[in-house]
Amino acid sequence: MALIDIINHKKLGLALSAGEISEFAAAAKDPGTPDYQLAALLMAIRLKGMDARETAELTLAMAHTGDMLTPSVGGVAVDKHSTGGVGDTTTLILAPLVAACGGKVLKMSGRGLGHTGGTVDKLESIPGFQTELPEEEFLRITREVGCCVVGQTGELAPADKRLYALRDVTGTVDSIPLIASSIMSKKLAGGAQAIVLDVKCGSGALMKTREDSLLLARAMVDIGRRNGRRMSALITRMDEPLGSRVGNALEVREAIEVLSGRVKGPLLQVALALGSQMLLLSGLSDTAEQAEEMLVVALESGQGLSKLAEMITAQGGDARVCRDTGRLPRARHERPVLARDSGWLRAMDTELAGEAARLLGAGRKRKDDVIDPAVGYMTFRRLGDRVEAGEEVARLFHNDEKLAEQAEEALLNALTLSSGQIIPAPWVLARIDQDGKESSL
Amino acid sequence: MALIDIINHKKLGLALSAGEISEFAAAAKDPGTPDYQLAALLMAIRLKGMDARETAELTLAMAHTGDMLTPSVGGVAVDKHSTGGVGDTTTLILAPLVAACGGKVLKMSGRGLGHTGGTVDKLESIPGFQTELPEEEFLRITREVGCCVVGQTGELAPADKRLYALRDVTGTVDSIPLIASSIMSKKLAGGAQAIVLDVKCGSGALMKTREDSLLLARAMVDIGRRNGRRMSALITRMDEPLGSRVGNALEVREAIEVLSGRVKGPLLQVALALGSQMLLLSGLSDTAEQAEEMLVVALESGQGLSKLAEMITAQGGDARVCRDTGRLPRARHERPVLARDSGWLRAMDTELAGEAARLLGAGRKRKDDVIDPAVGYMTFRRLGDRVEAGEEVARLFHNDEKLAEQAEEALLNALTLSSGQIIPAPWVLARIDQDGKESSL
Repeated sequence: MALIDIINHKKLGLALSAGEISEFAAAAKDPGTPDYQLAALLMAIRLKGMDARETAELTLAMAHTGDMLTPSVGGVAVDKHSTGGVGDTTTLILAPLVAACGGKVLKMSGRGLGHTGGTVDKLESIPGFQTELPEEEFLRITREVGCCVVGQTGELAPADKRLYALRDVTGTVDSIPLIASSIMSKKLAGGAQAIVLDVKCGSGALMKTREDSLLLARAMVDIGRRNGRRMSALITRMDEPLGSRVGNALEVREAIEVLSGRVKGPLLQVALALGSQMLLLSGLSDTAEQAEEMLVVALESGQGLSKLAEMITAQGGDARVCRDTGRLPRARHERPVLARDSGWLRAMDTELAGEAARLLGAGRKRKDDVIDPAVGYMTFRRLGDRVEAGEEVARLFHNDEKLAEQAEEALLNALTLSSGQIIPAPWVLARIDQDGKESSL
Repeated sequence: MALIDIINHKKLGLALSAGEISEFAAAAKDPGTPDYQLAALLMAIRLKGMDARETAELTLAMAHTGDMLTPSVGGVAVDKHSTGGVGDTTTLILAPLVAACGGKVLKMSGRGLGHTGGTVDKLESIPGFQTELPEEEFLRITREVGCCVVGQTGELAPADKRLYALRDVTGTVDSIPLIASSIMSKKLAGGAQAIVLDVKCGSGALMKTREDSLLLARAMVDIGRRNGRRMSALITRMDEPLGSRVGNALEVREAIEVLSGRVKGPLLQVALALGSQMLLLSGLSDTAEQAEEMLVVALESGQGLSKLAEMITAQGGDARVCRDTGRLPRARHERPVLARDSGWLRAMDTELAGEAARLLGAGRKRKDDVIDPAVGYMTFRRLGDRVEAGEEVARLFHNDEKLAEQAEEALLNALTLSSGQIIPAPWVLARIDQDGKESSL
């Protein structure tokens, strides 16, 4: 079967056969396949779609183009994946808490790209922390500590790696079947038996609407279910940064403060919601309420913070940061961002807010950009809050005056004030269970 | 404006602005533009379409990426373009006839690819015939003889050249705006003031249905009109080979026999219909009826054949072929093709019939394949005719026994016999005039 025939079938809106799907995945891995044929097929998929069967088959076929791990971690290997947000450092909070409750959190994370941050970058701001570990080491730490966070290895789903890069430059990122199969191919290859998805929804997320978020969540849950994984997905709000801090070391600091019990708020709330799904899928609790209670106990007893310290030590990092966040990299300069107008904070262009952090040097525009772990900002206002002209709404931590000016401009432009107060939606908008059904929490 | 933005706009189904269109054409010419972005945009256009304004602008923008000829030929420079068929050698008949009536036929032709033949290949089967001439020479012959047929130069519409090659391997050939703009960009660049289009319709044509043929004809006429050219298009039947012979030297021979007055039939009928449109657009006659009478006089008086001889001589060829077709290349072997069943000839898979000629060596699968000018076949039955099992329905002229077996198989497979007689549609199915209106002839 030639790739051109597969392109022609999809162009006409036909569902691709299992044979065609596996041919496509093999072609994507084969360096001899011309990019232009893959690009044409990706656009045909973007415009004609793929049904659930095709999407699940593509996902598995892409996973099988590389290594398939079958981790033995002394329990249900559970993973959590976020579709990417701003100030979203739930992993650093929920992984130690779930581990403290007996879970085995096997987490492969990405680096930040564009306006979103990446967990691997955040952890690397901890002095000495290693995110590239041999597979046996990674599994040993997960088994012994209960959690381990590493970067994705190049051998997982190489077909997806090529398609992902190509989608970025051909206008084919915004396709639910392609997003779902890309994320899930790496998850299937990674070998987690239970997967909790955090599908972000709003101005700072890939999915801008509730409908699209639900479609993506259902598509991913369906793929996992068809491949024998225990699945759960939460749709969470990403129309403002989740935590109060944006930037790598700043977010590690916030996670530590949350685990110390000093900081509450949406970051903890979402981490607990996701973490309880992880305990549920791991079979360590019978209800989400019970799971959440277990996590709160782990938090309040300090076991969560101890687990984080244990994991940092196991991965070669300086665990003293857990008691003394001053050991994390710090930017040389601070700059207050003052509101220009008064009003109620009605909306935040969260993609632009993420862009502000990237401008400071906290993120990457291109894959090979070098990031500055110390820079970022802290916000003092949330959606629905009152803002007075001249008061400090955020504080930049930076190493370059010019970049700080640009970031300040971006951050202020991200804010929309209005004369009437609004009440923001709940942080967890919906849950999709194993069978694709929507349920309240 | 980045190409990725243009891709995204078209992907969403938006009409591209004039600026975006000219950026697209420039990008297609620029070797620095990656093929994968052009491929994604072509697929988006294939699936989301382009309106008449976009199509006309793309055509002109592609024409302007190369030389724009403004030929001075001592009269209205008139061109004829066929969308490609099997056994379709109208150019060799109508060009001399129109020239004999005072027309100035400025004809740039292509080579055959796939199942269709190309006029340049056919002419090159005449010993010594040159199809690559300097521009001044080409124009001088058109001026003095009244007709000249050359190959397309590489400097005409280079953006189209790249897109055309890319469409072939990305499943984006079957897009009416892309077909129309591709054909017309070369015509606009070639500089003909009047253009007659022969849009083939049926199993051997790019357009399989009357509706699609009309859409393509209207799109091309519209492009020409918006760019100040006199236009006319005929939709003609291509559900069986137009002439009785298929193959390069064989078709030249048939054209000579038609111009000698020895052979009548559909090939002459369609050539006269197209030729009279050329005379009409050239201002050399007031009605199609009058034009056709002029052409018939030129044919019957032998002036048409003399013109062909004159053109052959001017282009370096051996004009003695016009009196003695035995001077054309001849295949070493003949093979009768015998019907396997009896019945009325109801349909012919004309693409497969064209493929049979290609299998013998008369055409190309890839651009750089070498063709054999001598080989091909002659058919003895037309749609609606009675066929008896065991009688000769075609005769192959070949140089390779194995290829002949394959071609025989293809040719027999192309035939559909039935128990009831059918009456074929007229050869000229419709005419689209300058204003895009359909009119009977």
